Amino acid sequence: MKSTNRREALRIGAALGGGLLARAEEPRSLGTPLSGYGERSRFVKSARTTRVTKTPEAGSSATPLAETYGIITPSSLHYERHHAGIPDIDPAQHRLVIHGMVERPLTLTVEEIRRLPSVSRIHFLECGGNSGGEWQTKNQPDVQRSYGLASCSEWTGVPLRLILDEVGVKPGAKWIIAEGADACKMQRSVPILPELDHAMLAYGQNGEPLRPAQGFPLRLLTPGWEGNTQVKWLQRLYVTDQPHMTRDETSKYSDLMPDGKARIFSLPLEAKSVVTFPSGGQKLPGPGLYEITGLAWTGKGLVTKAELTFDGGATWTEARIDEPRFPRAFARFRLPWRFEGKPVTIASRATDETGYVQPTREQLIAARGMNSGYHFNGIKFWRIGADGSVTNVETA
Amino acid sequence: MKSTNRREALRIGAALGGGLLARAEEPRSLGTPLSGYGERSRFVKSARTTRVTKTPEAGSSATPLAETYGIITPSSLHYERHHAGIPDIDPAQHRLVIHGMVERPLTLTVEEIRRLPSVSRIHFLECGGNSGGEWQTKNQPDVQRSYGLASCSEWTGVPLRLILDEVGVKPGAKWIIAEGADACKMQRSVPILPELDHAMLAYGQNGEPLRPAQGFPLRLLTPGWEGNTQVKWLQRLYVTDQPHMTRDETSKYSDLMPDGKARIFSLPLEAKSVVTFPSGGQKLPGPGLYEITGLAWTGKGLVTKAELTFDGGATWTEARIDEPRFPRAFARFRLPWRFEGKPVTIASRATDETGYVQPTREQLIAARGMNSGYHFNGIKFWRIGADGSVTNVETA
Repeated sequence: MKSTNRREALRIGAALGGGLLARAEEPRSLGTPLSGYGERSRFVKSARTTRVTKTPEAGSSATPLAETYGIITPSSLHYERHHAGIPDIDPAQHRLVIHGMVERPLTLTVEEIRRLPSVSRIHFLECGGNSGGEWQTKNQPDVQRSYGLASCSEWTGVPLRLILDEVGVKPGAKWIIAEGADACKMQRSVPILPELDHAMLAYGQNGEPLRPAQGFPLRLLTPGWEGNTQVKWLQRLYVTDQPHMTRDETSKYSDLMPDGKARIFSLPLEAKSVVTFPSGGQKLPGPGLYEITGLAWTGKGLVTKAELTFDGGATWTEARIDEPRFPRAFARFRLPWRFEGKPVTIASRATDETGYVQPTREQLIAARGMNSGYHFNGIKFWRIGADGSVTNVETA
Repeated sequence: MKSTNRREALRIGAALGGGLLARAEEPRSLGTPLSGYGERSRFVKSARTTRVTKTPEAGSSATPLAETYGIITPSSLHYERHHAGIPDIDPAQHRLVIHGMVERPLTLTVEEIRRLPSVSRIHFLECGGNSGGEWQTKNQPDVQRSYGLASCSEWTGVPLRLILDEVGVKPGAKWIIAEGADACKMQRSVPILPELDHAMLAYGQNGEPLRPAQGFPLRLLTPGWEGNTQVKWLQRLYVTDQPHMTRDETSKYSDLMPDGKARIFSLPLEAKSVVTFPSGGQKLPGPGLYEITGLAWTGKGLVTKAELTFDGGATWTEARIDEPRFPRAFARFRLPWRFEGKPVTIASRATDETGYVQPTREQLIAARGMNSGYHFNGIKFWRIGADGSVTNVETA
């Protein structure tokens, strides 16, 4: 081990009040035996918060971002957005039909898809409506309810391009209508663009089959595009020359602009970040050493920089990002920081490999107005009071 | 989308018997509502296989490697090796004591540790006894029971070096005795070597707190070293000038050599690989296209190459490895392959960044004899019969 000077910088003992404590010897007995499928500790109670419509089958549930570590979201805590509940699908009965403007229409079973050349990659998913409340001034109180419609997993599946090459896409075909097997047969029109080369027919999530809430046994994965295009319980790909203007690309997931026109098919998610600690609803126990941490992501490749401000954006300090980084995946950033017990407002901003810098909320509103509930990626502030309590604020 | 010639190579329709099938329209009703903590599909039943001693609290359970995808092992399926069961620890009561040959002994709570600068990284863990049965000719029938004491997760924790710098390791200190809070107070002596710079005090696993079976609320993580050194339920680090020759580094996890001497403290795990599909106990449904896949890993950095042989090792074909690769993590390799319905024996071998090539079983036995049950990393063959059934064999 090489020695460093971190000791002086951190002063853990002084900062945390640690010391050599006598430790009571506890009576010891044998613990729990081995098991086939493990569970978490009874002391861990993180859960998704749900927001439903008139029926509990339609709505969303949010990942507890302040209680997750690293970049992998536990599958049990991956955000949900369902339009007609989670179908109970027997994978042996499920089929994927690929038809329309193709030379050789095809029906595949899940077993057949699993036999094909596959790939595993780590990618985030984000609902187009994530942090939509931030357009308004009445925000959700914490990072889970405001930013929790974003999660990140290792996905395994067959490259979509391989399947499209197999069926032979006809000249003039420009769109794919993807359809789910849920009760509403949720559909989205997906453009055949170069970015679709990243797409896969995913059957695996974090090492096991997709969870039902994320599309078991098969979903379309379109890394970097808004979550709703990543159709779950995928049963049909209809290749055609135009979008079908389905419910979820017209009445939803489109942005009403100040001039009354709608911005639609804005699929690639732009660079975004949020501090998860300290964040709204938390309370720092007192002055001292902490690690500020958060997540940054972009639908357009790699996050190249994550920065933090403590003065309302006048100056920025670069945070460390865990390596390696993955295109179209969460990036975990960290910065050691000492809370002095005085009020302070903090925010993060991400830069991606295209050079795009996450805008301020004011810049977003200037460009798109206040009518939209979707695609918010403005810089996000949290205010820390003198007593350590953290609240959601729009600006420094 | 750019077109490729894969269509010709794969001939999915012909290979899989696919075609455009009429699909019965099913009655549709709303599915399951949103939930706080998700579960897997009732159609997914993968489980760890357990092997116990006279008491169910001591033994091991193995990851179903043939049923996992990518490189992340679901935490519920991570292998277990317990010596006195899983303790039920309240994290608010848990303490880590660091003492011995240090300038400033320290006791830390879990909350204090979580406030320190942390890092998240993907690493495999492997029991030193994994695939120990392969030394003998009576093998386990499948890859789970023969190779399943290896798993891979995203781990989050505080670099051990940071803590050692803080307490100030005294001159002459060369070992750390790590102790768990299980009923047997499992101990291992860990040498203070440059490789220990990769070590961390881990509190997170795959995005959530460590699972109890993997050491909740705190474990020592020593990436690349055998699993037993990565002490779970970590409660003590005693810094000293010599190893303590504990039970698990003398009676266990050491190799009895042909000359009667023991090879001990052979901590870094050497390059290893295994084909997980097709593997023992599986049956290919018939001739046609398949993707051979498997896992390679090394305790000494990156896997640089994974190769497959179909002729007993006379010739080798390089497989594709999913990118990016991580040091001291699983690497997932893949190779499209056509089963002709004739008997064939397959095996994989890994090469790591040091240039080390996974040896044959015969080479291992020549070097270490047959008395050892630990640290087997020989090339592993599976025999596929004309009927597609796969069995465990020692050689081609």
